[in-house]
Amino acid sequence: MVLKTKQQYIQSIKKLNAEAYMRGKRINDVTQNGMTRLALEGVGEIYDLSRQPAYSGLLTRNENGSTISAYCSIHRSPEDLVKRVRAARLICQKCGVCTASRCCGWDALNALWYTTYEMDTKLGTQYHKRLERYSHLVQGKDLTCAGALTDPKGNRSLKPKHQPDKDVYLRVVDENRKGIVVRGAKSMIGGAIGSHEIVVQPGTGFSEAEKEHAVAFAISLNAPGVVQVVNSQSGGERKLEKGYDKGNVIFGSSESLVIFDDVFIPNERVFMNGEYDYAAETVSKFVLLHRMVLGGCLAGCGDVLTGAAALLAEYNGLSRQLSDRLTEMTYLSEALYSQALGAALQGQPTPSGAWFPDPLLANVTKLSVTRLPYEIQKIAEDIGGGMLACMPSELDLTNPRVGHFIEKYYKGLNGVTAEKRLRAARLIESMIAGPGRLGALCMHGGGSPAAAQMTVRQLADLEAKKTMARKLAGIPSDL
Amino acid sequence: MVLKTKQQYIQSIKKLNAEAYMRGKRINDVTQNGMTRLALEGVGEIYDLSRQPAYSGLLTRNENGSTISAYCSIHRSPEDLVKRVRAARLICQKCGVCTASRCCGWDALNALWYTTYEMDTKLGTQYHKRLERYSHLVQGKDLTCAGALTDPKGNRSLKPKHQPDKDVYLRVVDENRKGIVVRGAKSMIGGAIGSHEIVVQPGTGFSEAEKEHAVAFAISLNAPGVVQVVNSQSGGERKLEKGYDKGNVIFGSSESLVIFDDVFIPNERVFMNGEYDYAAETVSKFVLLHRMVLGGCLAGCGDVLTGAAALLAEYNGLSRQLSDRLTEMTYLSEALYSQALGAALQGQPTPSGAWFPDPLLANVTKLSVTRLPYEIQKIAEDIGGGMLACMPSELDLTNPRVGHFIEKYYKGLNGVTAEKRLRAARLIESMIAGPGRLGALCMHGGGSPAAAQMTVRQLADLEAKKTMARKLAGIPSDL
Amino acid sequence: MVLKTKQQYIQSIKKLNAEAYMRGKRINDVTQNGMTRLALEGVGEIYDLSRQPAYSGLLTRNENGSTISAYCSIHRSPEDLVKRVRAARLICQKCGVCTASRCCGWDALNALWYTTYEMDTKLGTQYHKRLERYSHLVQGKDLTCAGALTDPKGNRSLKPKHQPDKDVYLRVVDENRKGIVVRGAKSMIGGAIGSHEIVVQPGTGFSEAEKEHAVAFAISLNAPGVVQVVNSQSGGERKLEKGYDKGNVIFGSSESLVIFDDVFIPNERVFMNGEYDYAAETVSKFVLLHRMVLGGCLAGCGDVLTGAAALLAEYNGLSRQLSDRLTEMTYLSEALYSQALGAALQGQPTPSGAWFPDPLLANVTKLSVTRLPYEIQKIAEDIGGGMLACMPSELDLTNPRVGHFIEKYYKGLNGVTAEKRLRAARLIESMIAGPGRLGALCMHGGGSPAAAQMTVRQLADLEAKKTMARKLAGIPSDL
Amino acid sequence: MVLKTKQQYIQSIKKLNAEAYMRGKRINDVTQNGMTRLALEGVGEIYDLSRQPAYSGLLTRNENGSTISAYCSIHRSPEDLVKRVRAARLICQKCGVCTASRCCGWDALNALWYTTYEMDTKLGTQYHKRLERYSHLVQGKDLTCAGALTDPKGNRSLKPKHQPDKDVYLRVVDENRKGIVVRGAKSMIGGAIGSHEIVVQPGTGFSEAEKEHAVAFAISLNAPGVVQVVNSQSGGERKLEKGYDKGNVIFGSSESLVIFDDVFIPNERVFMNGEYDYAAETVSKFVLLHRMVLGGCLAGCGDVLTGAAALLAEYNGLSRQLSDRLTEMTYLSEALYSQALGAALQGQPTPSGAWFPDPLLANVTKLSVTRLPYEIQKIAEDIGGGMLACMPSELDLTNPRVGHFIEKYYKGLNGVTAEKRLRAARLIESMIAGPGRLGALCMHGGGSPAAAQMTVRQLADLEAKKTMARKLAGIPSDL
Repeated sequence: MVLKTKQQYIQSIKKLNAEAYMRGKRINDVTQNGMTRLALEGVGEIYDLSRQPAYSGLLTRNENGSTISAYCSIHRSPEDLVKRVRAARLICQKCGVCTASRCCGWDALNALWYTTYEMDTKLGTQYHKRLERYSHLVQGKDLTCAGALTDPKGNRSLKPKHQPDKDVYLRVVDENRKGIVVRGAKSMIGGAIGSHEIVVQPGTGFSEAEKEHAVAFAISLNAPGVVQVVNSQSGGERKLEKGYDKGNVIFGSSESLVIFDDVFIPNERVFMNGEYDYAAETVSKFVLLHRMVLGGCLAGCGDVLTGAAALLAEYNGLSRQLSDRLTEMTYLSEALYSQALGAALQGQPTPSGAWFPDPLLANVTKLSVTRLPYEIQKIAEDIGGGMLACMPSELDLTNPRVGHFIEKYYKGLNGVTAEKRLRAARLIESMIAGPGRLGALCMHGGGSPAAAQMTVRQLADLEAKKTMARKLAGIPSDL
Repeated sequence: MVLKTKQQYIQSIKKLNAEAYMRGKRINDVTQNGMTRLALEGVGEIYDLSRQPAYSGLLTRNENGSTISAYCSIHRSPEDLVKRVRAARLICQKCGVCTASRCCGWDALNALWYTTYEMDTKLGTQYHKRLERYSHLVQGKDLTCAGALTDPKGNRSLKPKHQPDKDVYLRVVDENRKGIVVRGAKSMIGGAIGSHEIVVQPGTGFSEAEKEHAVAFAISLNAPGVVQVVNSQSGGERKLEKGYDKGNVIFGSSESLVIFDDVFIPNERVFMNGEYDYAAETVSKFVLLHRMVLGGCLAGCGDVLTGAAALLAEYNGLSRQLSDRLTEMTYLSEALYSQALGAALQGQPTPSGAWFPDPLLANVTKLSVTRLPYEIQKIAEDIGGGMLACMPSELDLTNPRVGHFIEKYYKGLNGVTAEKRLRAARLIESMIAGPGRLGALCMHGGGSPAAAQMTVRQLADLEAKKTMARKLAGIPSDL
Repeated sequence: MVLKTKQQYIQSIKKLNAEAYMRGKRINDVTQNGMTRLALEGVGEIYDLSRQPAYSGLLTRNENGSTISAYCSIHRSPEDLVKRVRAARLICQKCGVCTASRCCGWDALNALWYTTYEMDTKLGTQYHKRLERYSHLVQGKDLTCAGALTDPKGNRSLKPKHQPDKDVYLRVVDENRKGIVVRGAKSMIGGAIGSHEIVVQPGTGFSEAEKEHAVAFAISLNAPGVVQVVNSQSGGERKLEKGYDKGNVIFGSSESLVIFDDVFIPNERVFMNGEYDYAAETVSKFVLLHRMVLGGCLAGCGDVLTGAAALLAEYNGLSRQLSDRLTEMTYLSEALYSQALGAALQGQPTPSGAWFPDPLLANVTKLSVTRLPYEIQKIAEDIGGGMLACMPSELDLTNPRVGHFIEKYYKGLNGVTAEKRLRAARLIESMIAGPGRLGALCMHGGGSPAAAQMTVRQLADLEAKKTMARKLAGIPSDL
Repeated sequence: MVLKTKQQYIQSIKKLNAEAYMRGKRINDVTQNGMTRLALEGVGEIYDLSRQPAYSGLLTRNENGSTISAYCSIHRSPEDLVKRVRAARLICQKCGVCTASRCCGWDALNALWYTTYEMDTKLGTQYHKRLERYSHLVQGKDLTCAGALTDPKGNRSLKPKHQPDKDVYLRVVDENRKGIVVRGAKSMIGGAIGSHEIVVQPGTGFSEAEKEHAVAFAISLNAPGVVQVVNSQSGGERKLEKGYDKGNVIFGSSESLVIFDDVFIPNERVFMNGEYDYAAETVSKFVLLHRMVLGGCLAGCGDVLTGAAALLAEYNGLSRQLSDRLTEMTYLSEALYSQALGAALQGQPTPSGAWFPDPLLANVTKLSVTRLPYEIQKIAEDIGGGMLACMPSELDLTNPRVGHFIEKYYKGLNGVTAEKRLRAARLIESMIAGPGRLGALCMHGGGSPAAAQMTVRQLADLEAKKTMARKLAGIPSDL
C-alpha cells in the first residue's frame, strides 16, 4: 500500500534532516524538539486517519486503480471540492490546530496543474508534463509537500524591479542546461518543518522586466542551500516543555521562513521560468482553494473551542446558564462551514481538468473567516471566566508548599479536579493566545482581508445590479 | 402547455374574487387596487419567467413527461434544493420584493408530502394519496398556493387548551362524512391576495387534549367563510397612488390575515385531522425549507439594494469613494447565498422521496438572515445620504411654483435629472422603510430568531465537541 | 414673562404663514395639515416644558436677570454643554422624534457666536455686534430658529466655482448699501415649517474665487422669496390621517428644502459676507455641537423604543423571556448618552466666551450614533415579532364584517385589547419605518459618517501614539 | 516628602520578601525574576510619574496640607472621579499594561470607606475609624495596596453554606480579643507581587448562616500564612528571558492566587466581621469604580496598540492605505474613554463623603469594555499582517548562519531594520497574545459581562420607558 503510517512518516522526516534553526540553534532532530514534534504529530494524524476505512474516499482518492492520499490529488469535480472542505474540518476537529503543510502543498499542486496546462497549450512548454511526473512521484511515495507563496517584499511601495535588493522577491539568478539556480526567501510557510518537499509558487504583479521572479518549482527541503528558520510565537516556549500548560498536549503547528541560498533546481522540477503572465494566475487559483478551505478549518477549530468552553461550563456548574453562548459559537462555526460548502458547490472546471471553487464565494468565505472566529474566541473568553488569564502553572501543582492549595481552590463541581479544569482552560488559552492561535490563522491565512475584498469588488458585477435597480425604479437609460 | 401566462394568472385571480378587505373596505377588484395590483405583478413575473427558455429547469420541473412549474413540485434531490435557492434569488433580483405566496405554498406542499407519507405508513391513513391528487390538480392548473402556518396564539404564556378563546389556534369545530368545518385565523400570510388556494398547516406543541388543532388542509381562497384582511404597512398608502414615490414602481408584496369563519373543507382536501404527533413534524419541515431559502431571497433583495445604492453613488459622482462600501454590501449578500447553498448541498432525503435541507445549516442560514441584511440596509442608508430622508414628493416636481426649483437643486452629475436621483433614492427608501421592507422580511420570516437558535442548540451536539476537546487537552473520562 | 406658551407659539407660526408646499400644494394653514401640525406640537412641547419649574435651568437660562429659553442661549461652561445633552434626551423621551428646528438654530447661533467674534477681532468687522443684537431679539421674543447648512452641491466631484449652475451653492447675487440679495437653496432643514426664523450658515471649502458663497445670515421664514418644500417620507401620508396608524399620535418631525429665490437680507442680519476663510470654522463648530448632542437625542429615542418594545413584550406575555434583549437596548442607549456626556465634559472655551464640545469625542459620539441605534432598532424588530410587518389598519377595526375578527385575533394577554397591541406596534413601526425614523436621523444628522471619520483621523494624533509604542518596544529613533 | 521614588518602592517590596511561588519555585528576589521585575517596574512608573510636576493633581491629592498619592485617596467630587479615569488612561499609555495593584487597592479603600461609614452609623461599630487610621498609614508611607475580591467559589451552583469545603469562600475560622484568624484564598489578584498590603473584601450573597464569610480587612503581604502563587500565562516564559521577544520590554503585569493559610488579622485592620448585609454593598461600590475605570485603561492600552500598528504600517510603507483602520482604532479607544468620563461626570455622593460613578453608566462602560477592545485587537491583527504570527526569535537574529538572512528579508521601508519591525510586531503580539493581553483584561476585569448586564437590567427602569411609549402611542392605562 502506498499510504504511509504515521510512524513511517515521522521517521522519513527525521531522516531527511533538513537544515533548520529555531531560537538561534540548529534543530538536530525534529522528533526531539518539543515544538516540531507536535507539528509532526499533527501531519502524522493525517497519515493515520487516511488509512482508516472510515475516512476512505474523504482522505483518499482512487487514481488509476491505486489508492492515493487525497492530499496529493487533483480536484476533478465539485464533489472533490466539497470533500476538500470536509477534510479540512475533520482534521481541525481531530488536531485543534492548522496542520498547514499538506494543505498548502495540495493547493499548490492544483494551482500549478491549471497554469502549467495553460502554458503548455498556449506556449508549447513542457511544464504540465513535468508536473504530472512530479505528482506521480509525490503520490507514489505519499510525500508531504509544503506550499510556498509569500515573498518578503521589502519596501512594499516599490515594484520588484525597483527594490534595492532584488532578492526580496525570490528569483532565478543562474541557469544552465540542467536547471536553474534560485535565490530569495519565502515566508510564513506552514508546516515546512514537517514536509518532505516544498512546492514554490511565484508572487504576482511581474512585468517583462521582472521575469526573473516568475518562477515555480518543487524541491526537497534537504536540498543544499535550503535553510529554514522555524518561527517563535508567543507561548511557543511552553511547547518545548512537558506537561499540560501548553494546552493542546498532542498536536501543534509551525511556520518557517524558508531561505533559498542559491539553490539548484533540476529542470524536471521547474514548472515556470519567466512566463510572468502566468504568475498571477497560479497564485489566484491557489488562494481560491485556500480561501474556501479556511471555512472548513475554522469551523473545525471552532468546534474544538466550543467543546473546551462547554467542558469548562460543565466543570463550573454553569452549562445551562451558558447554553445561549455555546449555541452562538456553534452558529458561527457552522456559518463558516456552510459558506465554504457553497463555494465548493459552485465550483468550476478548467481546461486542465482541475476544478476550482467559485471565485466570488471563496473570497466571501475568506472574509467571513477574518471576522467570525474572533466572535467565537470572544465567547470562549467570556465562558472561560477570569481563570483563563489567571492560572497557576502545572509546576505549581506539584510544589509541596502550594500544590495542595491549588488542588483545593481550583476544584470544580462534584469531584472535578483542579487538573481537569486547568487542562480545559489551558486548551482554550492556547487556541486564543498560543502559537497557531485562531487569530493568527484566520486573519492572514490565504491572504489579507484587503486582498479578498479587492477580489470581491472585481467580481461584484455592479452593472448587473444597477440594471436590476433601474428597472424596478423605472429609470430608463435615456431618462 | 400547462404553464399560465402572467395575463392568464392575473385574470384568474381577478375572477376568483376572494372576499378581502383593506383599510376598512372590501376589495372589489384586485387588479384595480394599487397595492394588490403590484403584488399580483410580482407573482405574475414568476409565471412569465417560467415560460422563458432561459429559466427552464430552474423555474420548471419535468413530471411524468410534462413541464410543470417548479413552484408546485416536490424536491427530489439536493440539486432541486439548490435550484430552490437559486430561484429565490432570481425572483428577488427581478422583483425586489418577496413574492411569498408561491414560495410558501411550495414549501407547505413539500412539508406535507413528508408528513402525510409518514402518517399513511404508520397510521394507515389516506392523507398522502389525497395530497398526491391535490398536487396533480395544482400542477395541472398551474395554481398559486399560499402557505399558512401562524396562529394568532392569544396569551402566549398559556397552552392552547387553556386559552379562554380556543379559536386563537385554528381548529376543527365540526365534522361529517364529507369533510370538516374549521374556525380560526392564520396571520401573516404572504401573498394570499394573489393566490388561488391556501395550504394550511397546523401549529405545534399540541397534546391529545388539543388534537382539534392538529389540522392540515387546502382550500380555495374564495371558499365561503374565508375572509382576508390585507395588512397595511407604513408607506402602504403610497402604493395606492400613481407615480414613483412608492419606490419600486413595478412590483409589490402583501400579507393578509386570513380568517376561517366556519369553513367547510371536503375530505379530499384534508391532510391531517387530529394526528397531533405529526403537527410539529410538518411545521419543522416547512420552516427548514423556508429558513434555507431566505438566504437566497435576501441575497437577491441585497443585490437590488446594492444596485440602487450604486446608482445613487454614480449620480452623486461618488462611485469611487464608496466602492469599499458597495463591496461590503456584495460580501453580505453573497455570504447569505453561500450559506443557503451549503444547507441545500447537505440536504437529506426522507422516505417519502422528498428532500429537505440540512437542519443545522438551514437554521444557521436563518440566523444570518436576521443579521446580515441589517448591515446591507445600514450601508445603503450611508451611501444614500441625507437625501434618503429628505425628498420632495413627485407631486412637488410638477407644481408650477416649486417644480423647477426641485429640478434645479436635485440635479446630479452630468445631466442626471432630479427625477433619476429621486427614483433611485425612493427605491432604497421603499426597501428600507416601505411595505415589505427588508427588516420585516428577514427578522421573522420563517420564524423568529429565537426559534432558529433553539434548533441550533438542539442540533449542536456539544457532547461530540467536548470529546474532541477532552482528547486534545488530555482529560481522560476517569481523571 | 418672555417664555411663550405652546398655544402662543403655534398661533405665531400660523400667523407667519410662510410660503410652503407639500405634495404639490401650498400649505395654507400649518395647524390644519396633519403632518405639519404634529411637527408644531413637537416644538410646542419644548415651549410648554420650558415653563415648568421642574425643567427650569435645564431648558432655560438666566441672562442679564431675565429667564430666557436655553434654546436661544450661548453655552458659557461645560455644565451648559452637559445640559445641552440632557435637554436633548429629555425632549426625545417626551416627543419620540427629533424636533430639530430649535436645536439647529441653537447650534447655529453658538457657532456664529464664535466665528463672528473671531472676524470682528481679526478683520474689524461688525458681525459679532450684529449677532448680539439678533440674539437679544430672538431671546426677547422667544423665537424658534431653524438652522441651515447643507447646499444641494450639484456635481459633487466639482468645486463650487466649476459648477455649471453656481446656485447649487447658496450665494450673494447682489448687494447694496442696505443689504444683500441671496440665491440658492438649503436642503434637509429640520423643523423649518415650525420656525419663525432661519439662521443660514455657509458651506465649506471655498477659496477667494468662491467668496460669493461665504455668506451667513438670519431671516424670517415669511420673507419674500423664501419658499419651502416640506419633504415627503415613506409613511408620511399616514400623518395626514386621523387615528393611530401613524404610530406616534401626538408629535411629529418635518424637514424642508428651503429655497432662496433672490431674497433680500438687511445688513443687520448678515453675519458673514465673503470672508471665505471663516466659513469652515463656523460649520465645524456647528457640527461639533450637533454631533455631541445626537448622543442625547438617540438615547432619548432609544428609551421610547425600548419602552414600546417592553410594552409589546408585556402584552404578549413574554417580558421575562425578552428581558435580555430589553437590557441590551438599554445598554445601547446609555452608551450613546455616556459618550455625549464625555464630549460635553471635555468641552473647551473659545475667546468669544462660547464653549464647544471636545472635537474628538464629539465626532466619536457621532460615529457611535451611526451604529448603535441600528442595533436598538433591530432588537425592537426582534421583540416586536412578525406582527410589526403585518398589521391591519385601524380602519379595518371599525369595519362591521372584519372588525370583530381583528378584535378577537389580535387580543393579547389578560384583557389587552387588539387596539392596545396595535398602538404599541404602530409606534415601533413608525420609529423604524415612518417619517423621522431613527435611521434617517442617525446616519446623516450632523453630517455623514465619512465626515466624522475624517475628523477623527485628523485629531487622532498618531505620532503621540507611535511614541508610546516605540518606548515600550524599545525602538529608539536612531535604531 | 511622602511620595516614594521608584527606587524606594522597588527596594521596599524586595525587602518585604513576601512568600510567593511561580512555576513551582519560591521567588526569592522579586527584582531578579524577569516576570515580577517587569510588574514592579509598572507600579514603579506610577511612583515616578506621581513626583513629576506635570501630573501633580492628577496623580496626587492634597490631604490636610500634605501631598499624598491619589492612589491612596478618597474621591471627594465628580472631578476626582474624572481624574480617576484620566489617570488610568495615562498609566496604560505609559506602561501598555494593567498595573492593577494600586488601582484595585484604591478602589477597595473607597468602597470600604462607604460601607464602614454606613456600618458605624447604623450598627455603632468602629470600622470606619479603623479604616481612617489605616488610610493615614497607607498615605503616610505611600504604600501600594492590592485589592482582593474573588473567592474560588468551588461548585458554583451551591450556596456557600452548602459547599463541601467551606474554605472556598474566605472565612473567619477563629477570633480572640486581639483579632481574627482567616482561612481561604482570593484569586486573580492583580499586582499582588508588587504590593505592600492587600485589602480584602468579602464576596456577596451571604445570609446569616454564612456570616463567617462576611469579612473585610487589610494585611501586609508578608504576614505569616499569606502565600502567593503568581499565575503563568501563555507567553509568560518569555518574560523571564532577556531581549525583545517579550514585546513590551519595560513593563509587565502579574496576577496571583493569594492563599490565607490561617492568617491572624489584628482588630485594627478588620473592617467587617460578620455584618453580612453589608458585604454586597462593599462589592458593588468596588466594582462600580472598577467598571468605570476600565474605560480609561482600555483606551490607554488601545492607544499603545494603535501606535504600534501605526509604526508597523509605516515600516511597511502602508500608512496611507491603512489610515481608515487606524482611525477606527482611535474611534474605539475614544468611545471607551468617553463613556467612562460620562459615568464619572454623573457620579453621586454618599453620606461617607466618598463619591461613586453613576451605577448605570459605569456598568454600561464595562459592557463596552467587553466588546470594543476585541475590535481594536482585530484591526491590529489585520494591520500587523501575517508577520504577527510568523516571527523569528531574537536569538535567530544573532545566529551566524541565519542572522544575516533575517536582517535581509525582514528589512522594511528605507532603512528600517529587521529589528525595528520585529520589535513593533512583538509589542502587538504581546498585547494580543502575551501575559496581560487585552482580552484577559477586558472580559472579566471588574466582573463578568453577565454581572454587568444584570446590573443594567436592574437599573433600566423599564416602567418609566413604558410610560413614555404609552403616552406617545395614546394608550391610556384604562383602555
